[in-house]
Amino acid sequence: MISIQKEENFSDWYNDVVERAQLSDKRYPVKGMNVWTPYGWKIMQLIDAHIRQELDATGHEEVCFPLLIPETEFQKEKEHIKGFDSEVYWVTHAGNNELDVRLILRPTSETAMYPMFSLWIRSHNDLPLKVYQLVNTFRYETKQTRAFIRVREIHFFEAHTCHVNEEDAQRQVEEDLMILERLMKKLCIPYSLLRRTEWDKFPGAYYTIGIDTSMPNGRSLQIGSIHHYLTNFSIPYDISYEKEDGGRAYVHQTTFGMSERLVGAIIGVHGDDKGLVLPPAVSPFQVVIVPIPIKGKAELIQMKAEELRDRLLRAGIRVKLDDRDQRPGSKFFDWEIRGVPLRLELGMRDIDGGVVTFARRDTGNKGTLPLSSIEDAVLQKLDEISSDMNARAWKRHEDSLVDIDSPEELPLKMLRFSWCGKESCGKEIEEKLGLTLLGTPYGKRGERRHCIICGEESENLAYAARSM
Amino acid sequence: MISIQKEENFSDWYNDVVERAQLSDKRYPVKGMNVWTPYGWKIMQLIDAHIRQELDATGHEEVCFPLLIPETEFQKEKEHIKGFDSEVYWVTHAGNNELDVRLILRPTSETAMYPMFSLWIRSHNDLPLKVYQLVNTFRYETKQTRAFIRVREIHFFEAHTCHVNEEDAQRQVEEDLMILERLMKKLCIPYSLLRRTEWDKFPGAYYTIGIDTSMPNGRSLQIGSIHHYLTNFSIPYDISYEKEDGGRAYVHQTTFGMSERLVGAIIGVHGDDKGLVLPPAVSPFQVVIVPIPIKGKAELIQMKAEELRDRLLRAGIRVKLDDRDQRPGSKFFDWEIRGVPLRLELGMRDIDGGVVTFARRDTGNKGTLPLSSIEDAVLQKLDEISSDMNARAWKRHEDSLVDIDSPEELPLKMLRFSWCGKESCGKEIEEKLGLTLLGTPYGKRGERRHCIICGEESENLAYAARSM
Repeated sequence: MISIQKEENFSDWYNDVVERAQLSDKRYPVKGMNVWTPYGWKIMQLIDAHIRQELDATGHEEVCFPLLIPETEFQKEKEHIKGFDSEVYWVTHAGNNELDVRLILRPTSETAMYPMFSLWIRSHNDLPLKVYQLVNTFRYETKQTRAFIRVREIHFFEAHTCHVNEEDAQRQVEEDLMILERLMKKLCIPYSLLRRTEWDKFPGAYYTIGIDTSMPNGRSLQIGSIHHYLTNFSIPYDISYEKEDGGRAYVHQTTFGMSERLVGAIIGVHGDDKGLVLPPAVSPFQVVIVPIPIKGKAELIQMKAEELRDRLLRAGIRVKLDDRDQRPGSKFFDWEIRGVPLRLELGMRDIDGGVVTFARRDTGNKGTLPLSSIEDAVLQKLDEISSDMNARAWKRHEDSLVDIDSPEELPLKMLRFSWCGKESCGKEIEEKLGLTLLGTPYGKRGERRHCIICGEESENLAYAARSM
Repeated sequence: MISIQKEENFSDWYNDVVERAQLSDKRYPVKGMNVWTPYGWKIMQLIDAHIRQELDATGHEEVCFPLLIPETEFQKEKEHIKGFDSEVYWVTHAGNNELDVRLILRPTSETAMYPMFSLWIRSHNDLPLKVYQLVNTFRYETKQTRAFIRVREIHFFEAHTCHVNEEDAQRQVEEDLMILERLMKKLCIPYSLLRRTEWDKFPGAYYTIGIDTSMPNGRSLQIGSIHHYLTNFSIPYDISYEKEDGGRAYVHQTTFGMSERLVGAIIGVHGDDKGLVLPPAVSPFQVVIVPIPIKGKAELIQMKAEELRDRLLRAGIRVKLDDRDQRPGSKFFDWEIRGVPLRLELGMRDIDGGVVTFARRDTGNKGTLPLSSIEDAVLQKLDEISSDMNARAWKRHEDSLVDIDSPEELPLKMLRFSWCGKESCGKEIEEKLGLTLLGTPYGKRGERRHCIICGEESENLAYAARSM
């Protein structure tokens, strides 16, 4: 049992789970830069593997750009530099020399990639260009840091694409949304797609879709974003191509990125008072086998447990046989903290009955599975767990949303209301509610109602919440 | 055909292959920081996958430590800071603030990891501790840069271990040598293990084993190293443990690392005048299928080629069907530059005869393989290629070594000779030969002979060469 209860004190509960499940170590001597310990890093790598699979399958190619960006390149797009200036790390010296051109640590890679895109793209035959990278990025956070959610070295993926025109770039945004849907289903994370306000969009973007999930404390957590840039970057970085008719045009660009906040979302959305609850698709071990020893039969049970492990391994299941010399109850406790989706217990009664006893981590449900077809039975159980985790998480996400008709704050909820779209009303809403206006649902409109500030008729819905 | 010949001008040939095979792009606006383009990055990722497999199988756990190291931690080990001071990048500002404690970009991670090891290790039960990471590292190179061989942002793995005593640390070194042997067999890279001289060992090490291969221009290329630290770091970083008898002791440490120079070694050791020649284990495509179209039969041939591709894919072979609308000869040319180990050609004569025509990239040999058992035939052919590439490369590596009895330089060779072991003689050898003294063969001694400088009797052999 985790000593702090999730419902009572989410913030302390979260930190406690991170520490006890050994996901990362925050004692590294630079604040906000944590050490990925083996178990946490393995979860992140499994998420990365799903990201690679989705991006490769949609024709993106993986690259790796340098970390350091010359100040001169960084400053080409005016909005962009304004947006990041206060949060970049500066390399000013190397060895005993002061650098002629100062370098920044990538806060995101537009300004590293686009000078190269300008060399790579010559004609319409080179388009679309679709690349991505999985790297760490750096932001000098001044707010309080929190493992995976607000850190200064951030593991993330960023996909960058170039297109012949706005429509083709828009098709890319739609493809990104399909990728997102498949990925989030594996991670069992519900989300809202919110077109950010003009004053909150990505610096340099034409528009930004924020991908937001909700935490049990009622706060929203942005886990990723998709940006359409039009030609806002291709003009300053001179990324143009020869058209089929021989003329020249600037490319239209998009980006799509998600970060290690996905790990934070998994902890917050699924965890409980016993610890972490991992979706089967990203759990380092999907199954843990705990032998239940009886005097005189320990060797036989151990042998049967090894057989079981080997059968599951051959079926491609990530399985751990916990044959440490400890009480079964203490093993249950350890693997519950670490969120392993399915526990299999094997004792003499199971062996005699031709079954294995299972316990689901997400619901605590127990029962037996037939040994004869254990591979299929386990795979089916993992699917069930995944599907139930999705259903429950989506229900909670939807329940966390409250429609309001006037600017009154409901604590611990995400609010939905009519907004005329004017910045003045938007800012007033933020002030009155003490919340962040997250934006308007992407691709959806509501019924005609009245802006909760000025009363003007509008089909615009808007969302607001406290953000993590 | 690559326009520059390998034998005549290795240096230009190398750069030309990197560019034409599209392994990396050096036009990024920071010198020595290159962009990993998709094909080169895929090769590196395949190498990384083999590294992970070997390290995981020997009980190492993967972690990821922060990039930035506080100056205060970096300065704890005196030799270490002296060794790296002139080549680290300094972060001095963040946002608009000057940092209180300056940060360095990791040149290697001893000083990032060891403060944490000091927290993690409490008792003998925590030992051995074996972790590794695959990250990029930074060195401010002042010499001329070269793709994969001398760059300023370096992709590498570093394994760090802690042990109860010197003997257990020594056993780790022996395990590292086994890992190395298996890994290099996959990459078809021959190597010498040379214990570096006292003045050339890693800053802070008790001893350093350099892992050196030889390039066709006679120069040596260090592709990795293994270090035994004794307690040289554990004392300043206070990494100690409670012994079984209750007393306290400092841990004994080792590290093992190899870098993207492995890609440089593959290019240099195996490439030829047609371009890259990739070992099957790390080739993004192990097989390329080129249909040989005949009028009226194009559809049938395409269908048969797709069938062939699908069969090979199901057998776990990385295969590319090149069905672009181009002449076969031009496709052969493209895939030869990119080093694909095995080409399969499929025309009507092949289909009618129940065979596929193959061409080996490494030897140019051609022949046919039976379609009925094509999976096994291709796997066997890939094994043959790998084994032949190893044999030829090891032969050339051994042939590149010349025994000498007096300090005379033989150009374009690695030299072996007797050395008494004294620094004064060693430095004189370096000066007279204009070469680098690489060290003495690890774990081997020669016959009793005379130091080629002072004439003193010695069983010590030493190696010297120009290094890349």
